Amino acid sequence: MEERPIVLFIGGHDPSGGAGIQADIETAQALGCRATSLITCLTTQDSTNVRALHIQPVEDLLGQLDCLLSDMRPQAIKIGLLGSAEVIPPLAERLATLAVSLVLDPVLAAGGGQRLADERLVAAIRRHLLPLTTLLTPNRAEARRLAMTAEPDTAARELLGLGAGAVLLTGADEARGDQVINRLFQEAGEQDFNWPLLPHTYHGSGCTLAAACACGLARGGDLAPVVEQAQAWTWQTLAHAEHPGDGQWLPRRLPETEK
Amino acid sequence: MEERPIVLFIGGHDPSGGAGIQADIETAQALGCRATSLITCLTTQDSTNVRALHIQPVEDLLGQLDCLLSDMRPQAIKIGLLGSAEVIPPLAERLATLAVSLVLDPVLAAGGGQRLADERLVAAIRRHLLPLTTLLTPNRAEARRLAMTAEPDTAARELLGLGAGAVLLTGADEARGDQVINRLFQEAGEQDFNWPLLPHTYHGSGCTLAAACACGLARGGDLAPVVEQAQAWTWQTLAHAEHPGDGQWLPRRLPETEK
Repeated sequence: MEERPIVLFIGGHDPSGGAGIQADIETAQALGCRATSLITCLTTQDSTNVRALHIQPVEDLLGQLDCLLSDMRPQAIKIGLLGSAEVIPPLAERLATLAVSLVLDPVLAAGGGQRLADERLVAAIRRHLLPLTTLLTPNRAEARRLAMTAEPDTAARELLGLGAGAVLLTGADEARGDQVINRLFQEAGEQDFNWPLLPHTYHGSGCTLAAACACGLARGGDLAPVVEQAQAWTWQTLAHAEHPGDGQWLPRRLPETEK
Repeated sequence: MEERPIVLFIGGHDPSGGAGIQADIETAQALGCRATSLITCLTTQDSTNVRALHIQPVEDLLGQLDCLLSDMRPQAIKIGLLGSAEVIPPLAERLATLAVSLVLDPVLAAGGGQRLADERLVAAIRRHLLPLTTLLTPNRAEARRLAMTAEPDTAARELLGLGAGAVLLTGADEARGDQVINRLFQEAGEQDFNWPLLPHTYHGSGCTLAAACACGLARGGDLAPVVEQAQAWTWQTLAHAEHPGDGQWLPRRLPETEK
């Protein structure tokens, strides 16, 4: 049995298990990768909303990163919730030395509406992380806020111009009709992916999709097919979602073989 | 597709992914349960040893627990690394109201030797958690320290007397020859399980075994067969272990169907 590629996930912890590091770990396990992880923030949340953030001190997070990297080398990295602007410059400095694919899912607000990023954090992402990013996966609201531009497609192109290698603009947050259109922006052009709009609201769908993209890149795939396969698998996790609490539905991250 | 039973895992986070909450999450996913989790401590560690503990404030942890329990009800609970004595009385008070199976893996030291519990914490486990425990899973060193008794079998029986419903005394930490003997102590008697001694040292084998027991109980199994099946599955995760770092080997937690 071959050793699996290692993916490093950097993000928040969600006790309900729908989103955050648990979504990343389950995605890696389902898609044949080994997860390693660093937790930027613990959170108080349920399946309805985020109630509080408990941000980890920057020096502790960096100490954990340095300790881990001295022992293991990831083949890809995914960043989700960051929690504070202070961690971004030293984190970016370390990630730049690794020269591996970086998927950045810019988590700026919770599904329930709780704001998770201030303007300093948004500015630090633009300045320090976008130039390192292989694939950025914003929804429309996040693309607007990151690019400071009202029209989502224009925003996505501006984010390419700020250094992101590719932008997958997801459409589930503002879907109309019975289709979700996700649009992949690259320097060479744009590609649309159409998926059926599913009947519920889901907690952790964006985390799951970005994690699946990171796993595909860690396994050595080309960007466009990786992005397409990650969406197809994520839709399966939503089609099989469960409703263990009172709020949003939670993805069920089945192994690829059980699709 | 049926909704999966929910297991609540309370323990530490290990960035390397071998042990702690990641071991729990992967075990639940492999064994048909939905994980929820609370993180008592973040840690700085690699595959060789724990370098530092970053303990979460008690009030934050309890706030996360109360928020989660107001939304979802677990069918079983597993506790691993606690980190501090202060959290134990209010945690025990809440767990007592749930009346579900509790698996307690008394993590008192890291595989690399780092001490993770002081005497106040050991005393709080004895007083507040053992009477709520369905299954305690100490290795020999942990059983001695918890019972304050030098002989492991005597220690295990004393831990039953302090209120644990059953004690699975694991033998890998002091195995002799080519067999590991794990011994299950219940009021009605004792039962031995013999497993081949595997060639490496493993990071997270105890977490994996205890998590598998919690999943089996959440799925409604009887104690002795659950404990036997959990051991068999855990041995498979060790037989397929990977060596991504410089230290111990890390279990590969395959779905049951891939055994």
